[in-house]
Amino acid sequence: MLIIGERINTSRRQVNEAVEKRDAAFIQTDVRAQVEIGAHLIDVNASSRSRSELADLLWLIEVIEEAVPVRLSLDSSDPHCLRETVRRVREIPMVNSITAEKVRFEKMVPVIQQRECDIVALCMDERGIPKNVDQVIENAEKLTKDLEGLGVSRERIYLDPLIQALSTNTEAGLMGLEAIERIHQKLPGVKTICGLSNISFSLPKRSLVNRTFLALAMRAGLSGALVDPLDRNLMSVLKATALVLGQDQYCRDYIRAYREGRLES
Amino acid sequence: MLIIGERINTSRRQVNEAVEKRDAAFIQTDVRAQVEIGAHLIDVNASSRSRSELADLLWLIEVIEEAVPVRLSLDSSDPHCLRETVRRVREIPMVNSITAEKVRFEKMVPVIQQRECDIVALCMDERGIPKNVDQVIENAEKLTKDLEGLGVSRERIYLDPLIQALSTNTEAGLMGLEAIERIHQKLPGVKTICGLSNISFSLPKRSLVNRTFLALAMRAGLSGALVDPLDRNLMSVLKATALVLGQDQYCRDYIRAYREGRLES
Repeated sequence: MLIIGERINTSRRQVNEAVEKRDAAFIQTDVRAQVEIGAHLIDVNASSRSRSELADLLWLIEVIEEAVPVRLSLDSSDPHCLRETVRRVREIPMVNSITAEKVRFEKMVPVIQQRECDIVALCMDERGIPKNVDQVIENAEKLTKDLEGLGVSRERIYLDPLIQALSTNTEAGLMGLEAIERIHQKLPGVKTICGLSNISFSLPKRSLVNRTFLALAMRAGLSGALVDPLDRNLMSVLKATALVLGQDQYCRDYIRAYREGRLES
Repeated sequence: MLIIGERINTSRRQVNEAVEKRDAAFIQTDVRAQVEIGAHLIDVNASSRSRSELADLLWLIEVIEEAVPVRLSLDSSDPHCLRETVRRVREIPMVNSITAEKVRFEKMVPVIQQRECDIVALCMDERGIPKNVDQVIENAEKLTKDLEGLGVSRERIYLDPLIQALSTNTEAGLMGLEAIERIHQKLPGVKTICGLSNISFSLPKRSLVNRTFLALAMRAGLSGALVDPLDRNLMSVLKATALVLGQDQYCRDYIRAYREGRLES
């Protein structure tokens, strides 16, 4: 499971303040903690600061790379911001995101052709958020075909089935799990990824719902997730799920996490 | 999900003492708490007291039924104890357990023919604990055929795939999940059941592993589980999993558990 640390997002008050004040130490401490606990990539998102988004992203990239050698996930809905940042990062970036919407896809082509990168592809098109699993799969197939047509290899494609809220649709969890399973069946070699927070929108004890969904999504074949690596409960479930799914030989990783005091009861 | 409360087991020190002293109040308080929190059946097990097992079971049945109207799961490896208790319980009992071992199966025939009952059937035969999923399925099919031959309807058969320990076999979790899935595919109509504690044998933070396995087993189709209903973490995961799997319309049960302060963060 690829763990993408989601904490460097200016929609979080403290991060927004740190970016506003150019407080490099705050950002660097946070990122070091995420990497130390097991984040494989750090997601960087300044979308909430649309007027200064590009400058903020460039500053964040600089201070993060100064602190720790880690891959970055460049997270923006603005192709211009992505184009200007994708070449500025040291390691192979993840570009988050492209969609099957014709206009957005076309604007993203020059971005992803600049260099080799992982690409998060949201399974939505002009019709908006998919209404059923068939629509997700349709978009997944189209995105994979179009990206492969541009020379992107399957292992670099992370399809996001767009998990919806249980509070508005009781079937949202099942839809998400089925979408992940079917993507891996239909498109062997591609990766899947998702954010966890939508599923629990407007419910109490959101973190409980999020981590329960994560365990089930891992069983469905999920390749990576945007999570808060400092959420001990979530990381405990992630370790325990990998263990139960036979992905942790000799229980080594689980036992190490226990010895280091990182597992909740 | 059928929740079978596992607390009335004399292998637990306090229960053993209560049985020893014929402390009815202790047993009744415990059972009331289990039922209040959502146990559908109460498992009663005095196997650790082999010299007085039958007398202890009869006493336990009496004090439990005096306290609360609840179905009982009569849990013993001794067919004689089961034969003498199965007619003594008020509601339809669950008989725990029968196996595909010829001698044990034959001894159990007169037990289950006394009255209508649910039957826990362990998927093992003379070869002992199954070495792979194929052996589990083989035993599951044989047990179902033989029990149906005795007039037991499928809905009354709870097949237990015998979950093994991750600490001795990294594949144990996957084997268990696959066994549950395949039983439901091969034998539509039968139920599945399992205990949760074997999976985490000799590992630290056992409860974390147990409840993670429970979530995944529910996705695989598990019909019931022997659990401690007073384990708040476990019950929280059970509620959250039912929610994510679309089994909780309008999130009603989850939100009620939250309002009653029964969900962990």
